[in-house]
Amino acid sequence: MTETSRFSYRDLFSESAPKDPPRAAAVVRAKYDFAVAYPDPDSLPLDDLVDSLGSALAEEGRGLAVYPHQQGYPPLRDYVASKLGRDREMRVGVDDIILADGSSQPLHMVMESLLDPGDVVLTEEFVYVGTLTMLRRFRADIRGVECDEAGLLPDALEAAVTRAKGEGKRPKFIYTIPTFQNPLGWTMTLERREALVEIAQRHDVAVLEDDCYVDLRYDGEPVPAIHSLDDTGRVMYVGSFSKTIAPGMRLGYLTGARELLETARAVKSGGGVNQFATLAVHRYAASGKLDEHIDEAVGILRKKRDAMLAALGESFGGAAKWSRPAGGLYVWLEMPGEADLVGAREAAFEADVGYSAGNSFAPDGVSGGNMARLCFGYNTPEEIHEGVGRLADVFSREGVLGA
Amino acid sequence: MTETSRFSYRDLFSESAPKDPPRAAAVVRAKYDFAVAYPDPDSLPLDDLVDSLGSALAEEGRGLAVYPHQQGYPPLRDYVASKLGRDREMRVGVDDIILADGSSQPLHMVMESLLDPGDVVLTEEFVYVGTLTMLRRFRADIRGVECDEAGLLPDALEAAVTRAKGEGKRPKFIYTIPTFQNPLGWTMTLERREALVEIAQRHDVAVLEDDCYVDLRYDGEPVPAIHSLDDTGRVMYVGSFSKTIAPGMRLGYLTGARELLETARAVKSGGGVNQFATLAVHRYAASGKLDEHIDEAVGILRKKRDAMLAALGESFGGAAKWSRPAGGLYVWLEMPGEADLVGAREAAFEADVGYSAGNSFAPDGVSGGNMARLCFGYNTPEEIHEGVGRLADVFSREGVLGA
Repeated sequence: MTETSRFSYRDLFSESAPKDPPRAAAVVRAKYDFAVAYPDPDSLPLDDLVDSLGSALAEEGRGLAVYPHQQGYPPLRDYVASKLGRDREMRVGVDDIILADGSSQPLHMVMESLLDPGDVVLTEEFVYVGTLTMLRRFRADIRGVECDEAGLLPDALEAAVTRAKGEGKRPKFIYTIPTFQNPLGWTMTLERREALVEIAQRHDVAVLEDDCYVDLRYDGEPVPAIHSLDDTGRVMYVGSFSKTIAPGMRLGYLTGARELLETARAVKSGGGVNQFATLAVHRYAASGKLDEHIDEAVGILRKKRDAMLAALGESFGGAAKWSRPAGGLYVWLEMPGEADLVGAREAAFEADVGYSAGNSFAPDGVSGGNMARLCFGYNTPEEIHEGVGRLADVFSREGVLGA
Repeated sequence: MTETSRFSYRDLFSESAPKDPPRAAAVVRAKYDFAVAYPDPDSLPLDDLVDSLGSALAEEGRGLAVYPHQQGYPPLRDYVASKLGRDREMRVGVDDIILADGSSQPLHMVMESLLDPGDVVLTEEFVYVGTLTMLRRFRADIRGVECDEAGLLPDALEAAVTRAKGEGKRPKFIYTIPTFQNPLGWTMTLERREALVEIAQRHDVAVLEDDCYVDLRYDGEPVPAIHSLDDTGRVMYVGSFSKTIAPGMRLGYLTGARELLETARAVKSGGGVNQFATLAVHRYAASGKLDEHIDEAVGILRKKRDAMLAALGESFGGAAKWSRPAGGLYVWLEMPGEADLVGAREAAFEADVGYSAGNSFAPDGVSGGNMARLCFGYNTPEEIHEGVGRLADVFSREGVLGA
């Protein structure tokens, strides 16, 4: 080679590096953006966060000069532990929490701690695309398990566990979003949660509970966390401030058995979580303002959900089925089997409507092409009405609706 | 097993998980804290950061409701690219930068992208403990290369590369902190940088340049970045706002060839970097206030360095050698070969003085027991004088000084 020829990294990448890394997602958004999960942008508590930060820095800003604790700021961990006790019936203490970037980094930490290529992970039959992307990056053998509107079907779960064990591959964990499931919208009932714990205990399998939507409940009573139903330490639990404050805060948390947390902390990249954002969130939350904000946000989001359900009734009544979520940010739309909602996305985008086709959430990447996830968090109720109407028009034109 | 027996993760951990994860570092600090690298805590620009955040959120706070760009906020990337052009003679654009948590996450991203167990990485003979910890976690074969006060010795570097290649293990990269090296304090000369690039090009080896101290120069003229001396794309470059604003901001950056960046982005955990801290830093930096702050901090830190050098002359003159850094945060103290500075740490801590023994920075974990890194960033000049005096007293009592 000559000295100035271009260097090639091709032979340098590690075995575990993704072979064909995805390009950075192009940030193109439709006006009627039902595609990605945002909280309501008009009720973000921006002034309160700046005020909270100002007082925190006045009190202990010198601490910014010091590297943050590897598990994150103890007072915020203490707040999280109390909140999980109060809201989720979980008994965890300040040392049982690791703060990290959103819920995404905690999931990454668990996967990096536990997964080797080919390891079996069981999930709901459609599941959060971020989880799928990470599971694929760690080359897990991802197996979707059938659900109904009460959550994972115990018989199907047991069959999947038994089959994997029969292949000599005890599942590394069962991943579930039991509350306001993303993308399906249902909430797993207490009975189903108990059945899941019983199966996990009997088969000695771990569980990863992703509870990042739980604070956004519009109807009905809370269902206890799966973590609270198990006393063996097999349930790992992830939560986040992304949906209650803002995704841009990048603050979430992981709890679970100490044995797991020690390894998860060791594989966490980036050191202790952002102390600047942490101080703002801690003062904001500990003052009680976060609870008030959640109440307000729930009122706003409930109206948006209702607007979407009403608009679907108006425009899709009889021609499709959809979920009626008691909380969270998503409605799951199911069209007749032959409908191609993957193909219709482009035409929808031209009509300024964005959505995610069902196959994005499928472990096999293919199933669910006649389904779509519609997020109602970002647009106003009026916009939601307009957007759903436009979607129906596009689907009619494309031969998807009433074909 | 009974249903309530404790779950064990032991058989669940992945091959790559650390076998014996370190406990969370106990945060016990001496009053005279020369152990860990902090910037000056009294000149943190707290009010300016809060103001910058307030105006940024007033202008585009709704954007917090959206997930940040995977490479980070484009205007801050643009600022970083311009700064690297202005200060480091580097030609990089907005798409060549990935913002991440401190400099620690960029290092992690590079290592996760490139390292398999047993891969050879060459470093300076003593080097940043965070890098060593990560390299060990990825089970690299870490080989220290001899240095003098002008940096890595070209002959020693060439010999190390040749030896590794002779074993069939082309080094994955050469890791260097060429400016105000941590812990050694020297700055690699331009001639040595050119020699390093020439060797890397001739042997077709990549380079990872960690330049996180470069803004803290107290004397002399800047030396161009190694990245600026290579036109083949083999130099990866990491920088940070931790030393110029605050470690608690957790903001740093990675640049390098696109091929490398695409993989590094794919292995980054936690999504796009914290947008809340990013907005504050961007407005603060783009307004010119960061440059003013660096000027002020450099003035303060220069006095601290001078205080430490003077105190060492007073208390250690003739009995030890130490570096005279033109910037950065560290003085490297070298006592006679038989001195046990590992053993003396406890007695020093009882006298309320903290330091890091040299072996922490050694690839083999053993060499350098007669050496120590003294950070002068945190304490006032008066405290530095007192602390160094106490250290000399302790070393005398322990038989380390003038034994």
